[in-house]
Amino acid sequence: MVKPNELGITVKKNQDFSEWYTQVIQKAELADYSPVKGCMIIRPNAYSIWETIQAYFNERLRKLNVKNAYFPLFVPEEFFKRETEHAKGFTPEVAWIANKDESGQRLAIRPTSETIIYDSYSKWIRSWRDLPLRLNQWCNIIRWETKATRLFLRTREFLWQEGHCVYETIEECDKETLLILDEYENLCKELLAIPVIKGKKTEKEKFAGALYTTTIEAFMPDGKSLQCGTSHNLGQGFAKSFKISFLGKDEKPKMPWQNSWGISTRLIGAMVMLHGDDKGIVLPPNVALNKCVIVPIIFDKDKDKILKKAKEISKVLSSFNVILDNRDNYNPGFKFNEWELKGIPIRIEIGPKDLKEKQVILVRRDTNEKEKVKFTKLKSRIKELLIEIQNNLYNTAKKYLDSSIIKVKDFSEFKIAINNKKIVETFHCGDSKCEDKIKEVLNGVKATCIPFTKEKVKGNCVYCNNPASYKVYFAKSY
Amino acid sequence: MVKPNELGITVKKNQDFSEWYTQVIQKAELADYSPVKGCMIIRPNAYSIWETIQAYFNERLRKLNVKNAYFPLFVPEEFFKRETEHAKGFTPEVAWIANKDESGQRLAIRPTSETIIYDSYSKWIRSWRDLPLRLNQWCNIIRWETKATRLFLRTREFLWQEGHCVYETIEECDKETLLILDEYENLCKELLAIPVIKGKKTEKEKFAGALYTTTIEAFMPDGKSLQCGTSHNLGQGFAKSFKISFLGKDEKPKMPWQNSWGISTRLIGAMVMLHGDDKGIVLPPNVALNKCVIVPIIFDKDKDKILKKAKEISKVLSSFNVILDNRDNYNPGFKFNEWELKGIPIRIEIGPKDLKEKQVILVRRDTNEKEKVKFTKLKSRIKELLIEIQNNLYNTAKKYLDSSIIKVKDFSEFKIAINNKKIVETFHCGDSKCEDKIKEVLNGVKATCIPFTKEKVKGNCVYCNNPASYKVYFAKSY
Repeated sequence: MVKPNELGITVKKNQDFSEWYTQVIQKAELADYSPVKGCMIIRPNAYSIWETIQAYFNERLRKLNVKNAYFPLFVPEEFFKRETEHAKGFTPEVAWIANKDESGQRLAIRPTSETIIYDSYSKWIRSWRDLPLRLNQWCNIIRWETKATRLFLRTREFLWQEGHCVYETIEECDKETLLILDEYENLCKELLAIPVIKGKKTEKEKFAGALYTTTIEAFMPDGKSLQCGTSHNLGQGFAKSFKISFLGKDEKPKMPWQNSWGISTRLIGAMVMLHGDDKGIVLPPNVALNKCVIVPIIFDKDKDKILKKAKEISKVLSSFNVILDNRDNYNPGFKFNEWELKGIPIRIEIGPKDLKEKQVILVRRDTNEKEKVKFTKLKSRIKELLIEIQNNLYNTAKKYLDSSIIKVKDFSEFKIAINNKKIVETFHCGDSKCEDKIKEVLNGVKATCIPFTKEKVKGNCVYCNNPASYKVYFAKSY
Repeated sequence: MVKPNELGITVKKNQDFSEWYTQVIQKAELADYSPVKGCMIIRPNAYSIWETIQAYFNERLRKLNVKNAYFPLFVPEEFFKRETEHAKGFTPEVAWIANKDESGQRLAIRPTSETIIYDSYSKWIRSWRDLPLRLNQWCNIIRWETKATRLFLRTREFLWQEGHCVYETIEECDKETLLILDEYENLCKELLAIPVIKGKKTEKEKFAGALYTTTIEAFMPDGKSLQCGTSHNLGQGFAKSFKISFLGKDEKPKMPWQNSWGISTRLIGAMVMLHGDDKGIVLPPNVALNKCVIVPIIFDKDKDKILKKAKEISKVLSSFNVILDNRDNYNPGFKFNEWELKGIPIRIEIGPKDLKEKQVILVRRDTNEKEKVKFTKLKSRIKELLIEIQNNLYNTAKKYLDSSIIKVKDFSEFKIAINNKKIVETFHCGDSKCEDKIKEVLNGVKATCIPFTKEKVKGNCVYCNNPASYKVYFAKSY
């Protein structure tokens, strides 16, 4: 339990965003630093959010005929080397174990599992009847980051899911790669109230070893874009390296198409940054384990009556996992602060006057608005209000996202927009070297994604002025 | 999907148990060997059993006020050294990572998480109000075994849950340590139809660093005992080493009591060994994802009618996750073999004659018994039959367990019983050196547990003939 002197966040969100984030994560007991540099402890308040994400997504996976499995943590070094681009992309951040395999081979701790999984696929897949093969795993991932740690956003260990599917045709593979991206978009909206921009990564920013990468990008209040999930069409590169082939309906050997896709505990960080305020985190109702908290306002003479009623109410609201905060060593003001810090969507106050009026006072965490509700209407009103809060969080974030996108015509406008913490919408030639230069000139700025559109591209590159290949977003990025 | 030539198990369970086990696990697609020696791939057929165990146990944990969290994979070397007994016990099987922490410290890959978790507990616990603190995590565990691998039973990586609780008093700690053991016993019975012996480990066999260890032990058809779950009262040793203390109600600093407890994917191996037969695995209905499979017996002229009815039935039985096997490239005999191999509890056959009689034939996987059931009674009969199968598997295993326990009076009887693949029930002096000698003389034999009993001990040690300290079971062990 939080101690009185530890409750308050000592900085404002819009004054020192980074420090605010670090404090709010720890004080709301979502995560803690580990004695091992770069690793984090995911505490129950955050782990329950991850479990909600898992339950929701597992249900979606079931409908998509994706099955869960578990592959080893260790990956033989030789596997990494097989797919050249993949190896290049991951080498800098791979952690290795000191113990050697009996064969004398170095073993990596999985930074992603394409190679270890596809080795099995090459054994399991024989005929077109084995396809599509769709597996997913929920596991821990190790990337030996050398940059500074940010809880949930950049840590040496994190939790994720990774889906790995194999198809007969590129068409199926394309289709399902995008289907998963839609699933990720829905999950962000339905659970975490996070609006995203969907699109394709540029060649420069795509996953190491992919044909192309699709992405969902959220935009944080500090003016930085955050990649929230990716779905890669891997083409046939891994199939080639791992010798995955199948006998087609025509009895001829063929090479299959593959995709892989993932979301991680990073989403919890995105949720905190987007919805939190100076008082603490704000939980979207659909991921809040406890949807509301009852704080009885007790004066000695009415104590028993009020507590009795509060207990009655907590029974009525049990389906919302309501908390009844009847601790007698803290005053109501302290309790208000604590539950606001922890982001509980609705506070229910009940005092002597309310008891007389057969009502309670509801306080929304998102807007701080209060309303009186009669006992008889309470359950139905809470149900409505939770939906209103979920929608309000999403809509507010969506307005922020939409208003953050600035169309720019030239590079001076580009720089101004970035300085104003905006997302730049512009045209680009598609040359990775030109993209490099933008990244050099404006430190921390990346092409976030090429939006899906059927519009014809008419214009020139914002940097080199050559004919444009596509419309693209640039922003500072995590 | 299994290929025709890969279906059959080439040895009998009672002829070459070890080879039978290896084949059945792989052919039923429960697990596969990994290219990394000693590691395994948990395939969807087995992972779904693990998910069922997780869902069941999470629900129990919720009722016991245990919350889920996640702690880092890496443990600083210095942490291990703090609790001397613990360090001694785990050192031989710890895997280390090659990358060093910024502080230059060696990092272990968790073989168990007491030390990394209790470091956090020392920061989080301040007052009696913070107790009891009850957390659990589901995670992967690495133990660098040098003995031969057995899928699910002994691998370098496995999945488990580990609970870690802190209490004000030893009484609470004792009580909940045993409560969890009861939960494990129930889980084994309710889900996996595995009967167990409950008891306490001897001083020699207890968990490194524990005050005492309680255990559930199952008995396998090859005459070996298998530890299926343990719950340790850790006393105050870790609290002392990790400086965990709290301010009591009397405002004085006190040292708390701790327990830890775990079950792992090993349970899946136990289930396979106990219930499987020469045809394959036998899934207890309560862990079978698909409770039944419909195999239409099709001849050309009635094909459409039978398939139509089979589809109707599969809709009626959708709550049992029924599989309709309408593949037209395999004959019914092949399909029977495949689903028997994979252990589906009930096969539903429907052919032209059945259609006419408005009936199906049900075939139980556990006994191979057949019965005719009218369409109108099908759903209710399946429901009953699944309960019968679950009970029959448990009761059969319980009879085997009970009949395997042999009371012995002296060491020559002891040896005969062990040679006959039995569990020895006997008296022991309690001296670890005497226990060592038994282990030396009878290779692979261990004290499995001291049963919980209120009987007074009257007798002498089976080996050294000194006065006995307790009644105890010995058996060959995994």
